[in-house]
Amino acid sequence: MGESMPRTAIIGAGISGLTSGKMLKDYGVPYTTFELSDRIGGNWAFANPNGMSSAYRSLHIDTSKQRLSFRDFPIPDHFPSFPHHSDIKAYLDSYAETFGLLENIEFNNGVQHAGLNSDGRWDITDQNGTTREFDLLVVGNGHHWDARYPDFPGEFTGETIHSHHYIDPQTPLNLTGKRILVVGIGNSAADITVELSSRTLQNTVTLSTRSSAWIVPKYIAGRPGDSVWQTSPHIPLSWQRKAVQLLAPAMGINPELYGLPAPNHKLFEAHPTQSVELPLRLGSGDVIPKPNVSRLDGDTVHFDDGTSGVFDAIVYATGYNITFPFFDPDFVSAPDNAIRLYKRMFKPGMDNLVFIGFAQAVPTLFPFIECQAKLLAAYAVGRYALPPAAEMERVIDADQKLYVGHCTDRPRHTQQVDYFHYDHDIRTRELPAGMKRAELARRRGKVAV
Amino acid sequence: MGESMPRTAIIGAGISGLTSGKMLKDYGVPYTTFELSDRIGGNWAFANPNGMSSAYRSLHIDTSKQRLSFRDFPIPDHFPSFPHHSDIKAYLDSYAETFGLLENIEFNNGVQHAGLNSDGRWDITDQNGTTREFDLLVVGNGHHWDARYPDFPGEFTGETIHSHHYIDPQTPLNLTGKRILVVGIGNSAADITVELSSRTLQNTVTLSTRSSAWIVPKYIAGRPGDSVWQTSPHIPLSWQRKAVQLLAPAMGINPELYGLPAPNHKLFEAHPTQSVELPLRLGSGDVIPKPNVSRLDGDTVHFDDGTSGVFDAIVYATGYNITFPFFDPDFVSAPDNAIRLYKRMFKPGMDNLVFIGFAQAVPTLFPFIECQAKLLAAYAVGRYALPPAAEMERVIDADQKLYVGHCTDRPRHTQQVDYFHYDHDIRTRELPAGMKRAELARRRGKVAV
Repeated sequence: MGESMPRTAIIGAGISGLTSGKMLKDYGVPYTTFELSDRIGGNWAFANPNGMSSAYRSLHIDTSKQRLSFRDFPIPDHFPSFPHHSDIKAYLDSYAETFGLLENIEFNNGVQHAGLNSDGRWDITDQNGTTREFDLLVVGNGHHWDARYPDFPGEFTGETIHSHHYIDPQTPLNLTGKRILVVGIGNSAADITVELSSRTLQNTVTLSTRSSAWIVPKYIAGRPGDSVWQTSPHIPLSWQRKAVQLLAPAMGINPELYGLPAPNHKLFEAHPTQSVELPLRLGSGDVIPKPNVSRLDGDTVHFDDGTSGVFDAIVYATGYNITFPFFDPDFVSAPDNAIRLYKRMFKPGMDNLVFIGFAQAVPTLFPFIECQAKLLAAYAVGRYALPPAAEMERVIDADQKLYVGHCTDRPRHTQQVDYFHYDHDIRTRELPAGMKRAELARRRGKVAV
Repeated sequence: MGESMPRTAIIGAGISGLTSGKMLKDYGVPYTTFELSDRIGGNWAFANPNGMSSAYRSLHIDTSKQRLSFRDFPIPDHFPSFPHHSDIKAYLDSYAETFGLLENIEFNNGVQHAGLNSDGRWDITDQNGTTREFDLLVVGNGHHWDARYPDFPGEFTGETIHSHHYIDPQTPLNLTGKRILVVGIGNSAADITVELSSRTLQNTVTLSTRSSAWIVPKYIAGRPGDSVWQTSPHIPLSWQRKAVQLLAPAMGINPELYGLPAPNHKLFEAHPTQSVELPLRLGSGDVIPKPNVSRLDGDTVHFDDGTSGVFDAIVYATGYNITFPFFDPDFVSAPDNAIRLYKRMFKPGMDNLVFIGFAQAVPTLFPFIECQAKLLAAYAVGRYALPPAAEMERVIDADQKLYVGHCTDRPRHTQQVDYFHYDHDIRTRELPAGMKRAELARRRGKVAV
């Protein structure tokens, strides 16, 4: 960006929008945050009126509080090891209040349309119909709200719900005394399967998965699992993955032990699922494991192994699409969740558009997003500059290979990033390099003047 | 017993009564089983009309099916690793049917009174008021039905329930949206605490424990925990306990890790609690850990650490009394659950009375009881004879020291037995020795005649 402070628009007041606002405020950048809802928190605002929270009533984050904590705002000591969604909302509320972020947020005023005008600036039309011009657009609308459904042949005539809409066994569907099929093997699938398979609800619960998953515990030797190991930025990631792949089987993480299909990938080639309860429920006969669905037929579901079952309801815990409803689809979109972004933030060739939070950072998302927001602020004030588009494209390929190259080719894995590696890269390489580029550009500019 | 077959009465058609019946039938001993209920299964007959089942709707046994299986009747392969109470009932039903045990059971006809008549035989009065004479009495009325309550000072004015009566969060009390205190740290306490603390029920759940407990997982490295180790009868038990005490902390079994009090005993000096879910619920802030209750005061409960809380309901998961309602208390009783029995079966000085199943066998109860039932049958037909009463008393002391001597002095631990050690002792030492004694007695008898 140039020397003057860019008028900045932020879309969304979830973690991405809040951390972006905080960092821009720190650097004195004028900004406006557009938020559909009447509250902050996005995904972590349970029952968010904007419809964009996927939190169920019992949701606890799978990241330990130590790993979850923002660097700039320590998580309260009294929090449990794995905070409940209400704890996280309280943490975000406290973050927003402490840093005075609420005053910049226009609540109940989402962005209807964002497009470039003839001056190359942003015309932002809000839901009230007002259009304002901005120099810089920060997209933080999240990627856990647009429910993704699998495309099975046939039709199911029972009740259907996506995990995005699941609240509890009574809401919005009455899932008691029912024959239920849960499709998926991510954390939501595991949590909802465990919840619905409680014998107190008198359901019979079947779990179907295509890819299967390694199932890792939240606790290892009584310590939060994610505090037991940390990738080093100084050793090739592939070696570290190999080491964990060798050691991990002793933890009983192979889903075949509990009747699930064999994973179609090695450990860490896709997200492992964190659950101590799912193996127990499978081993207790409370959950019936099945491979992928082959066909739907009325109230009957056929599976890849030739078996079938009759069900009253299907819960699709099959993930989310990355969607930008405010962009014209031809302008910017992420078909199959793929979007080529430099450092997961910058679209080569568009220097006034920044994406925040579009990654599946392992093992922790909050400090990852905070790290991105810091780079955003440095960029906004001109302290950090991007390399030429061609170099950005090259780096995108290299990063993709580093982080995702080993992953199975699935929409949910396109965004996988190792947080420790990313953070180290940004702090020790990318930011200093970008500061040099900015300094060079400034000198050239002065010479030119 | 003598040379002729003793007319035998069995009290109860639970595991103890069923295995006893099976073995007596094998040996051709005539017997009648008195059962209060209209069905077999005792504790494992969920909602048993005799009021003696402590099974809650979600109960799964904490023993793996491999360890649970009777030696004489393999558990079905298709059973889950940790069977549900309904699986176990089905297994017992199948056992009873296969061995023709139902025909000897008088249902809806418990024993009202059992006493010795002037001939030294048993006068058994059933609940219909009929009295019949038997030569041998087998007591298998179980020890998980007479709810034990702690004796806290003061009075609690909220709702109170013992785990014995707990069925599910709606039955018999509506335990949703409530402030609940669970007292105890055994398996029932852990299960019920986990169940009631599900955020879907919107309770706040506090767990209070006096002794605390080591919390061991049901699965170790993906295998049922009880299949990973087995005590050897050839190495002193105290050494084996020491070895496990040294190795086990790596499994995160210390309850202090999750905010619970430190155990007042070493691992295996009291029953460890098997739960993978309780540590998670504590670490997720869904369960508030507290030390022992110091005082009750209206709706307030005070704890040993000086804190207090207001509660709507208390769930006492505080164990059971060993009770023989059909005996005159002065005749036979078990004050504080202590009853001196030779091999946990024979009361010195009473040679026509056998107790079956009065032990907390670790890690498995079913084959333990089956082993006792085999000794019973050998005794009933005169193939096995008891030593003199004085020797029995000496052995009781020695066995007590071996099995329980290291335990904390609590009613729930008086009956602790290592199954592997016990079974090995009965098969390789006690039964052969008793057969020699019987043979000797027979020869002496023949000489005398």
